[in-house]
Amino acid sequence: MDANLVIDGVNNQVEMETPNNITIKGILGLLMANVDTENEENVNNNKKMVKKKVISLGMGDPTAYSCFHSPDVAHDAVLETLGSHKFNGYSPTVGLPQTRKAIADYLSRDLPDKLCADDVYVTAGCTQAIETALSILARPGANILLPRPGFPIYALCAAFRHIEVRYFDLVPDKGWEVDLNAVEALADRNTIAIVVINPGNPCGNVYSYQHLQQIAETAKKLRTIVIADEVYGHLAFGAKPFVPMGVFGAIAPVVTLGSLSKRWLVPGWRLGWLVTNDPNGTFKNPKFVERIKKYCDICGGPATFIQAAVPRIIQQTEDVFFGKTINLLKWTADICCEKIKEIPCISCPHKPEGSMAVMVKLNLSLLTDISDDIDFCFKLAKEESVILLPGLAVGLKNWIRITFAADPSSLKEALGRLKSFCQRHSYQQNGCC
Amino acid sequence: MDANLVIDGVNNQVEMETPNNITIKGILGLLMANVDTENEENVNNNKKMVKKKVISLGMGDPTAYSCFHSPDVAHDAVLETLGSHKFNGYSPTVGLPQTRKAIADYLSRDLPDKLCADDVYVTAGCTQAIETALSILARPGANILLPRPGFPIYALCAAFRHIEVRYFDLVPDKGWEVDLNAVEALADRNTIAIVVINPGNPCGNVYSYQHLQQIAETAKKLRTIVIADEVYGHLAFGAKPFVPMGVFGAIAPVVTLGSLSKRWLVPGWRLGWLVTNDPNGTFKNPKFVERIKKYCDICGGPATFIQAAVPRIIQQTEDVFFGKTINLLKWTADICCEKIKEIPCISCPHKPEGSMAVMVKLNLSLLTDISDDIDFCFKLAKEESVILLPGLAVGLKNWIRITFAADPSSLKEALGRLKSFCQRHSYQQNGCC
Repeated sequence: MDANLVIDGVNNQVEMETPNNITIKGILGLLMANVDTENEENVNNNKKMVKKKVISLGMGDPTAYSCFHSPDVAHDAVLETLGSHKFNGYSPTVGLPQTRKAIADYLSRDLPDKLCADDVYVTAGCTQAIETALSILARPGANILLPRPGFPIYALCAAFRHIEVRYFDLVPDKGWEVDLNAVEALADRNTIAIVVINPGNPCGNVYSYQHLQQIAETAKKLRTIVIADEVYGHLAFGAKPFVPMGVFGAIAPVVTLGSLSKRWLVPGWRLGWLVTNDPNGTFKNPKFVERIKKYCDICGGPATFIQAAVPRIIQQTEDVFFGKTINLLKWTADICCEKIKEIPCISCPHKPEGSMAVMVKLNLSLLTDISDDIDFCFKLAKEESVILLPGLAVGLKNWIRITFAADPSSLKEALGRLKSFCQRHSYQQNGCC
Repeated sequence: MDANLVIDGVNNQVEMETPNNITIKGILGLLMANVDTENEENVNNNKKMVKKKVISLGMGDPTAYSCFHSPDVAHDAVLETLGSHKFNGYSPTVGLPQTRKAIADYLSRDLPDKLCADDVYVTAGCTQAIETALSILARPGANILLPRPGFPIYALCAAFRHIEVRYFDLVPDKGWEVDLNAVEALADRNTIAIVVINPGNPCGNVYSYQHLQQIAETAKKLRTIVIADEVYGHLAFGAKPFVPMGVFGAIAPVVTLGSLSKRWLVPGWRLGWLVTNDPNGTFKNPKFVERIKKYCDICGGPATFIQAAVPRIIQQTEDVFFGKTINLLKWTADICCEKIKEIPCISCPHKPEGSMAVMVKLNLSLLTDISDDIDFCFKLAKEESVILLPGLAVGLKNWIRITFAADPSSLKEALGRLKSFCQRHSYQQNGCC
């Protein structure tokens, strides 16, 4: 876990602890580097050398595909605030008042207890919201409960802030629900929060009202709080509707993290939020407010003119835009599941109902020369120019995360290559079974 | 120094250490709240009630004044990258390659050893560059040497990262040069860096080539590194030219922090950088590079489309724009100094040569009913609707920071009110001396 750095040039010993966590971007970079510029393609059993277009289903960034196009009103709103020359200066470090208000009103639509502007802290994307949440809660001896599989930035943040990470399992056969017994067994008085990601990344699950309520009740019982990562908020296309964790803020205090990134398809705009859902006023404690405000002072937040565009973006984006995205994600999720059914060595325990990704399980016993998920993904990248994320990167060895937020033709092509890759490497192909 | 927070709502004891540092924005907010909506104005000894426009010379944000107008090419460049719809996705967390390259080339113009793209990490303004620099250098028992007076964000960051702060004085009678003897006396093997802000905030000084070299030699002797805060880089209008600390990177490793904020007059765009000036390759240590890259992974950086505009902004901004800003700052600095000469109870030990602010000393012995700099600024705000920053906020009690980056008429008006305020509160006025 520790790494030492010696700044030799000045003979000055600087010891550093660098977390050795795997990062998604890091491993995807290695996979990209492993792609052959020329791949073999099997055509009627005659091998010929052809170049294959690299298709990445590794990242949760749909903007790589033209079918996932941000709404024009969002661009118009930012063009307007930039063009006005009124927002070149600093904003308050907690965010512009009108931006905080607009986000509070937006989230309040789905909450029994309405939020006010002061509940909202504007951040540079959801990443900075995660970093801020963990940093303001950090204290000596603290631990945090994280889902497995989950989003690795939490563990990386925790490592930099010296917060002990304790993992609870998400149960695939129960729609990736939280193993609440595990949560209770892991928690103690130093547990600063339970992290819940809904709609789920990497699993594509959407939690029911009842399960979210159970999580809140568990947090109450354990005298801790819930950090609700809702960066994929509203991206639900299955039977269950998206229910924000904040609905249960009266049971246990909830810190909601979100952003424009996924629902508005502008992850690169870095406009996120940290929101306290807290009808009982727990977070109204002046010392907590002072702490988070001072923490915001050391964070470089999002651009002022992008913040200034948020009220118009939220108010004027039409439901038809959101509907189009949902239908497209439902379609690509279906394509994904259908194609996976055709591949014996890969199984999908739970059909995705939300977000942009799904976890599938490798059956290594059916594969001849694949040692694990990392080996699988590296060989797949090399032979088929298809990038998938090894499950290890999200905490689940010998699983794979497939992002289905891609245009249908690329998705079909990539999964077709995945199928032929699996056939080539399976015993059936070699007549062993 | 510590504050405790009890989350009563869930009977869960969360102990938190919140730094009790004064923040500039915090105290300016209190001063603003102290402004009378109606002020007395002394006209031929007949007092009449008039409303006075609030004039703030408290913040380092020139965009509040129309004469400090960002270059059109900068706006055009961002409009272009936003309009292209090509930069809505995530950028690498260290920054876009072309952005890192453009910043490396820009800084290399003034360096003997050229920088490469990999030396540059793109940050959400200089604030995030400061936070990143301190966080990656932090380790148990570490201390950092900060200038007094200085920029309070450093101490706030250090407190959040549990880095001990040790202050060295800047000497007003020597053009606010660093007291190098004090630096040597303060440093030990746990000293992670010496922070140098040049051009100086809050003092408006510009360091000579020789003095910067002495600082580098001192860092080498002490086996530490220099963090060079050059957010006001090139904003020098006195006899001495701006010399980047990176020039001396071969003597001691230099981490240069900067941004578009001040020179391009767009502080709200949050586009900054952390750059390693390091011809000896100290920072090329793989473990250091790994650490900073992983730290970038938990920071939400600047918007991708703003990053994408940086190459054009840097390449196409004309010298005439920079010249205009320099001439305006020289003019307003002169106005500031002339007006201050007319006020007996305020003295300016060193005429500003750069940045956007100057430190002036209060002579409390000449004032009847002013207890200190805080009292002075609050009464000034209440009586004259003029906002100045108490020196205590930057580490120098009974001094005041005046930002002269304002339009000349507002500046003259504000300093005129300052003069009458001082007259009203001085013994001369009351015939005591």
